[in-house]
Amino acid sequence: MNALISSTSASAVATADAAALLERLAREGRVAQRGLAKMPSAARGAALRLGADALRRFAPEILAANAQDIADGTAAGLSAAMIDRLKLDPARIEAMALAVEQVAALDDPVGQIIDETMRPNGIILRRVRVPIGLIGIIYESRPNVTADAAALCMRSGNAALLRGGSEAARSNKAIHAALAEGLVAGGAPATAIQLVPTQDRAVVGAMLAASGLIDMIVPRGGKSLVARVQADARVPVLAQRDGINHTFIDRAAEPGMARDIALNAKMRRTGICGAMETLLVDARFPDPHGLVEPLIAAGCALRGDARACAIDSRIAPAEATDWDTEYLDAVLSVAVVDGLNDALSHIARHASGHTDAIVTEDAETAARFLSEVDSAIVMHNASSQFADGGEFGLGAEIGIATGRLHARGPVALEGLTTYKWLVLGTGQVRP
Amino acid sequence: MNALISSTSASAVATADAAALLERLAREGRVAQRGLAKMPSAARGAALRLGADALRRFAPEILAANAQDIADGTAAGLSAAMIDRLKLDPARIEAMALAVEQVAALDDPVGQIIDETMRPNGIILRRVRVPIGLIGIIYESRPNVTADAAALCMRSGNAALLRGGSEAARSNKAIHAALAEGLVAGGAPATAIQLVPTQDRAVVGAMLAASGLIDMIVPRGGKSLVARVQADARVPVLAQRDGINHTFIDRAAEPGMARDIALNAKMRRTGICGAMETLLVDARFPDPHGLVEPLIAAGCALRGDARACAIDSRIAPAEATDWDTEYLDAVLSVAVVDGLNDALSHIARHASGHTDAIVTEDAETAARFLSEVDSAIVMHNASSQFADGGEFGLGAEIGIATGRLHARGPVALEGLTTYKWLVLGTGQVRP
Repeated sequence: MNALISSTSASAVATADAAALLERLAREGRVAQRGLAKMPSAARGAALRLGADALRRFAPEILAANAQDIADGTAAGLSAAMIDRLKLDPARIEAMALAVEQVAALDDPVGQIIDETMRPNGIILRRVRVPIGLIGIIYESRPNVTADAAALCMRSGNAALLRGGSEAARSNKAIHAALAEGLVAGGAPATAIQLVPTQDRAVVGAMLAASGLIDMIVPRGGKSLVARVQADARVPVLAQRDGINHTFIDRAAEPGMARDIALNAKMRRTGICGAMETLLVDARFPDPHGLVEPLIAAGCALRGDARACAIDSRIAPAEATDWDTEYLDAVLSVAVVDGLNDALSHIARHASGHTDAIVTEDAETAARFLSEVDSAIVMHNASSQFADGGEFGLGAEIGIATGRLHARGPVALEGLTTYKWLVLGTGQVRP
Repeated sequence: MNALISSTSASAVATADAAALLERLAREGRVAQRGLAKMPSAARGAALRLGADALRRFAPEILAANAQDIADGTAAGLSAAMIDRLKLDPARIEAMALAVEQVAALDDPVGQIIDETMRPNGIILRRVRVPIGLIGIIYESRPNVTADAAALCMRSGNAALLRGGSEAARSNKAIHAALAEGLVAGGAPATAIQLVPTQDRAVVGAMLAASGLIDMIVPRGGKSLVARVQADARVPVLAQRDGINHTFIDRAAEPGMARDIALNAKMRRTGICGAMETLLVDARFPDPHGLVEPLIAAGCALRGDARACAIDSRIAPAEATDWDTEYLDAVLSVAVVDGLNDALSHIARHASGHTDAIVTEDAETAARFLSEVDSAIVMHNASSQFADGGEFGLGAEIGIATGRLHARGPVALEGLTTYKWLVLGTGQVRP
């Protein structure tokens, strides 16, 4: 037997093992989800508060596990940025526990009545919110996602299969063990929130293929993770693409407001998906230099089209690819456009459907922009950095959805539910 | 070159051609959809009414095309049932035109405000309904789907790619040509509703693969069509599985109501997806024979478990597969169960998540059934044959969704929309 054949069969065995393991976990999760759905909302909230307490109580164990992950990651040459994302300290554990408590305090969407009508034959139709079911979450190095995602799923009556990055394996295991102790003490089924082992990479493939067992996959992480999940999944995926976000400064923008919003939209935090990546300036906006000066002063590198480069000599010429790039950094592309129509067609061509904004005092221009830009989030006179579940008042978010089905924009508790129709009759039969 | 190779390359060429054709159609559809989204709702309604007029005006051409399809189908040996589904007459064309007018008269969901909140910083958040985009509809022999689906998509601001069965190709072409004339006269973009040619079967594969070009696929047809679409699609599919629907006759059911509902749920029309397929009878229900007698008298073949067979000697023993079978015929499986819990576990094991019903006068039992049965439609004291968009007051339906994401139960105009978030500020920047 040659090496190729034996390695192929070894991998085939690993894949079959992974599929069997995943199927067992998913079936246990589905049974637990039915138990969760029967728990009163207050009991699920109370269980979460016990989970938060347990995170605090097991902080020493979580920190010890995290120190091992950090040591291994450092030895394996992880970047400083990755180590920072991975690293826990007492303050980060307290923040995790607080976040779980905040989710516990949110209104439970399960059982909410979406609408109710009565038919001429006396039948009452009611749509009520129900959990989606079993949710698979595939994420990278931040261990706090383990607690956040578990809390959001539990609050909305969903079971979860959590699959974190292998570099955070020990941290995630310790966080999960603590949280699970609290949840179970609060009466939640033990397999409602399960951690999928990281040893075997084939398990991710098994999750993506588990159509009929997992109801939805949420990828949380960088572009390549999301792209892989979307390319391979047979299970519906909560789509999250890049945030190539535009801010259009209309001719009728108030210049001070335009300056403050542009600076904040780009520079408050450059690495979040709600950050502005392209600034569109109406050729008739009166103070273009006042707009770019604070950005340059704050250390942002600007790349412009020909007319933008004429605003300030420190603006470099943009390449064609710049208009389709999510920098997630102190870099901004700038284009001068001829009015609203020109801005709308730039956005239609280059936006990723995440968050696009207009700054203007002209109500009619604003109304057209809000109506015709077809992104998940469209803003008027506000910074695109508000694109965030917390800022929307939704509590923690499971992600920002840029697809068109099921849920768009910040997805939190309500986005983790669907509905069923109740039909309440008094003996009606159909003629 | 041997036969196998030449056939393979011919098919590869056809596939590349199909993908190119589909891409062109989809791009034209997407452009048209942006035009549609800008049309005022009243204009889209008026265009649909012109479409209905044109269906009536072109009735002779439609009937002539249909006669050719019928002649070819008869020569090709299509079953009488298929020929009946295919066949048009003046009354069926008038019904099609009326259905289009009814959809035109429905409230337009596009632009509806789902909810609105104000944040502490003064920002107003509003979720508004928007079209899904470009919808692909893959259907079988009924030519009226061409008009129904076009009308629903147009009313909700969506563009459509319609791919009907090859046996109805001429009929669909004539219906589409008539409808399109009216729609364009009403100001709708010419490529808003496009018919996908049926010559090349590879086009269906290209539709299923057109992720990013088609926003959603709706399969309308039998099990094998739906299964193929769900197995192969990279585009999100509006899931529609079997209707293995249960009616549970509780011990506290009113016997007359139970008898009427059971008879109607099974026998009003046996071939629709809302028909009951399994009757569950509580062992303590006082009049089981009164329940089955009218069904048997109406010509229904009953298949029961041991206790059901004891109710009447004309009930045949059921096979294990009967509990998972959608008969769509005058056949019914009957099981005697020990109370609500037993009924709930039978349903959890065998239901397909479509429509399940309870008949009982006991409010507490009904409440538990409505809460714990997790199907798209759950009924109390009503016939499952009410599972229908028209009966729900939604107008024509594009399908009954049994998945858990996006839309469940009868899917009509609202189910053909999603939402975007509007963020209305007065200059807020994020701290």
